[in-house]
Amino acid sequence: MNFRFILNIFGRVLVLLGLFMLLNLIWVLVYHEDTLVPHLASSFICIMTGGVAYFITRHELKQSLGLKDSYFTVTFTWVLISVFGSLPYLLTGSIPHIPDALFETISGFTTTGSSILTDIEVLPKSILFWRSMTHWIGGMGIIVLVVAILPLLRIGGYNLFKNEASGISYEKLTPKTTSTAKRLWGIYITLTFVQVGLLLLGDMNLFDALNHAFSTMSTGGFSTKNSSIGEYSPYVQYVIIFFMLLAGANFSLHYHFFKGRFRRVFQNIELRAYLGIIVVVSATIAVIIYHTGGLSGEKAIRDSLFQVVSILTTTGFVTTDYLAWPVQAWGLIFLLMFIGASVGSTGGGVKVIRHVVSLKNVMLHFRKMLHPNSVTVLKINGEVIDEEKVSSLISFLVLYILTFTIGSIIMSFLGEDILTSVGAVAANMGGVGPGIGSVGPASNYAHIHDAGKVVLSLLMIIGRLELTTVLVLFTRLFWVR
Amino acid sequence: MNFRFILNIFGRVLVLLGLFMLLNLIWVLVYHEDTLVPHLASSFICIMTGGVAYFITRHELKQSLGLKDSYFTVTFTWVLISVFGSLPYLLTGSIPHIPDALFETISGFTTTGSSILTDIEVLPKSILFWRSMTHWIGGMGIIVLVVAILPLLRIGGYNLFKNEASGISYEKLTPKTTSTAKRLWGIYITLTFVQVGLLLLGDMNLFDALNHAFSTMSTGGFSTKNSSIGEYSPYVQYVIIFFMLLAGANFSLHYHFFKGRFRRVFQNIELRAYLGIIVVVSATIAVIIYHTGGLSGEKAIRDSLFQVVSILTTTGFVTTDYLAWPVQAWGLIFLLMFIGASVGSTGGGVKVIRHVVSLKNVMLHFRKMLHPNSVTVLKINGEVIDEEKVSSLISFLVLYILTFTIGSIIMSFLGEDILTSVGAVAANMGGVGPGIGSVGPASNYAHIHDAGKVVLSLLMIIGRLELTTVLVLFTRLFWVR
Repeated sequence: MNFRFILNIFGRVLVLLGLFMLLNLIWVLVYHEDTLVPHLASSFICIMTGGVAYFITRHELKQSLGLKDSYFTVTFTWVLISVFGSLPYLLTGSIPHIPDALFETISGFTTTGSSILTDIEVLPKSILFWRSMTHWIGGMGIIVLVVAILPLLRIGGYNLFKNEASGISYEKLTPKTTSTAKRLWGIYITLTFVQVGLLLLGDMNLFDALNHAFSTMSTGGFSTKNSSIGEYSPYVQYVIIFFMLLAGANFSLHYHFFKGRFRRVFQNIELRAYLGIIVVVSATIAVIIYHTGGLSGEKAIRDSLFQVVSILTTTGFVTTDYLAWPVQAWGLIFLLMFIGASVGSTGGGVKVIRHVVSLKNVMLHFRKMLHPNSVTVLKINGEVIDEEKVSSLISFLVLYILTFTIGSIIMSFLGEDILTSVGAVAANMGGVGPGIGSVGPASNYAHIHDAGKVVLSLLMIIGRLELTTVLVLFTRLFWVR
Repeated sequence: MNFRFILNIFGRVLVLLGLFMLLNLIWVLVYHEDTLVPHLASSFICIMTGGVAYFITRHELKQSLGLKDSYFTVTFTWVLISVFGSLPYLLTGSIPHIPDALFETISGFTTTGSSILTDIEVLPKSILFWRSMTHWIGGMGIIVLVVAILPLLRIGGYNLFKNEASGISYEKLTPKTTSTAKRLWGIYITLTFVQVGLLLLGDMNLFDALNHAFSTMSTGGFSTKNSSIGEYSPYVQYVIIFFMLLAGANFSLHYHFFKGRFRRVFQNIELRAYLGIIVVVSATIAVIIYHTGGLSGEKAIRDSLFQVVSILTTTGFVTTDYLAWPVQAWGLIFLLMFIGASVGSTGGGVKVIRHVVSLKNVMLHFRKMLHPNSVTVLKINGEVIDEEKVSSLISFLVLYILTFTIGSIIMSFLGEDILTSVGAVAANMGGVGPGIGSVGPASNYAHIHDAGKVVLSLLMIIGRLELTTVLVLFTRLFWVR
């Protein structure tokens, strides 16, 4: 592997991370905190380490990455920023225990939103801001990854959808790809600040509005309040529902929408399935909780819609404890964790389109059973998906379930009960945050064994990077010549 | 569809069923029961109905079945024998409630072994015998289905393994196919009676030995005792473990074994995986229950091995309540319900080979990630499996999980708790019998809502007939021209 070039990339990433950390200082000043030194030190360590790594490898710039290099670099970029990104927590003493600080940072950068904090509101504002910003940075990272890198690496079927990503050359990271990435970043940043504006019209101050917009657009889920969005007015809740919906949709559809290509947007099969799932599941849950919970109709619909959108988009904000609902309702919430958001969004999980392809493949199978000699092809948005791509995509589902199962077995052997084991694994692999059992929305991950936190941290990264990017590093084939 | 020819087949099946029922009379006489009239009536109804159906369609014999006819016939043969097969329960008054009687009969013929009986031992011996015989008949049915019909219909990837089924022509139900079926029946019947002999050497009388041999070789699981095999000596338990192992292995491997082709048998990848799973899981559970249960080493190993073999082969006999084990142990037992026995056995579930192919496909995917231009093919027992077959086979897994999920949702909406819902669905789709939650080995299905019993009965048939055979009947495409 080309370690010198990889080191060069890592150096650049670290410098960038250190620069982002400087933004924390705004809140140190605004709120007159005594956290100036640790924040400056964190930033300094990142910039210096990154700078040195970049400097000693500065002649490697013209190189390119082989496949193995790429998988290694993508995975370890997330590990690297998580290790260095935990410095503000550790140096300010906000999260003094290293496994906890790593868990919280990985949860941030993977836009998962699981937390080991039992009282969020006691933390310095600057730390809360860094916590939300890890989400936002993670979201930006995912956009580049999804637009530019995964299709190139043919990971998880991302190369299936090249038409949707509109005009990207998959040969190399060309200027065109860069411009697409910049365009999507533009959408991401614009939507973030539109949301900030709308939240300010409700009962949020600028600090909270920024934090929650960062967490929403990245489908992260960290809040600055212990009761998450339950703290805020219905207006704020509806604003957040709307922006979670946007964050969980394919960003290239936002681009088409802005360009006035409405037909293309609303005929997209993944968007239709995504909205369809939300309507059907929200309506079902609303009926259940309306009949059993003594809620008003509006509250039943709002609670149901909020939780469904939050979990399906893998954000993980909550306005109520869904585990207090009847089992039929939270059972459906749990199942949503296995569906995930749309491809090309900042959301995690399996993704709606993979389920669509897999269901279409089952239908195709029925068709072949009845008409064995008919020529049948699988089409997504009018484009034929060949047998090999379908097989690669369904492999992803198999691998997802396999990883979920092995993860759950490990968690159960670490002493967690069965609902907590499956809930924690589903919620962290899927990038959701709150799970079921003892890691539900009214609880957190503080009580999980350190070894369990390590396992869940690994699962967050595996899930975030579409499984195979990370898991290929664990194959024998990766390490032989 | 060719209803007249289908009626002809149904007529023949019913006559055969009525003749089997006459065997119950042996035990009416031996045990001087007062159940002679209901047994005779049951048999008479079957033979007369079948005879009439056969007579009025007797000129249709030379016809053949189209694909739709075949799916319809296979599914409704199981429904038909279950409806008529419930007559002895209903007419003797042993199980007076119709949904219960149907559940018990379907559980019998699908070789599932779930029971709604709260006290088995109070039933007349003749009824217990019929109950075990429904298993044995179901097992014979499955052998024909797997050897002759499913490969012809290309269901569930059964046509992948034609080499293993040794010399079957897949063109038509040729004399050669019939002779293969007869050979496998020969093995089935021989093994059943060898087992009877070995059980008689232990603490079983002829009646119990016959019943348990019927339930073992069909991987059914009905016992004549309330405490199942826990009633009997370690010797009997080991004999039953050994025969469950044989019943859950591919029957054509038994044939090769008898022919002295040991190499071919022990190099079979499914057999190796099947035995490997048993060794690894049994050892893990034995260690867990040895450390927590205060058992002797032999008892820990025997309990673990018995339960693991019983659940993996989808038999469902028990010698102890595995739900009383630590969660890590019964969690593994629950997972075994999703693996299932071998293809070409009388066992149900997903089948080991499908997992093997799916794992190999994941490995292939990793290989392609690292060497995109290398030519990679998936081989099973030295034979190349093409992309389309792999996709069809993995579709099965997807459909299995989908059916399991929908089934669990329905059960939960019918008011069952979450563990009972998933446990009942997994155990009945997989043909296992005992599940988890309130339908564990120390319990039964008596308390399940009638609608739940209907759902589970349907799932037993769907699972037994490799999903697609039945589910295709529910597609729109089946009913349009």
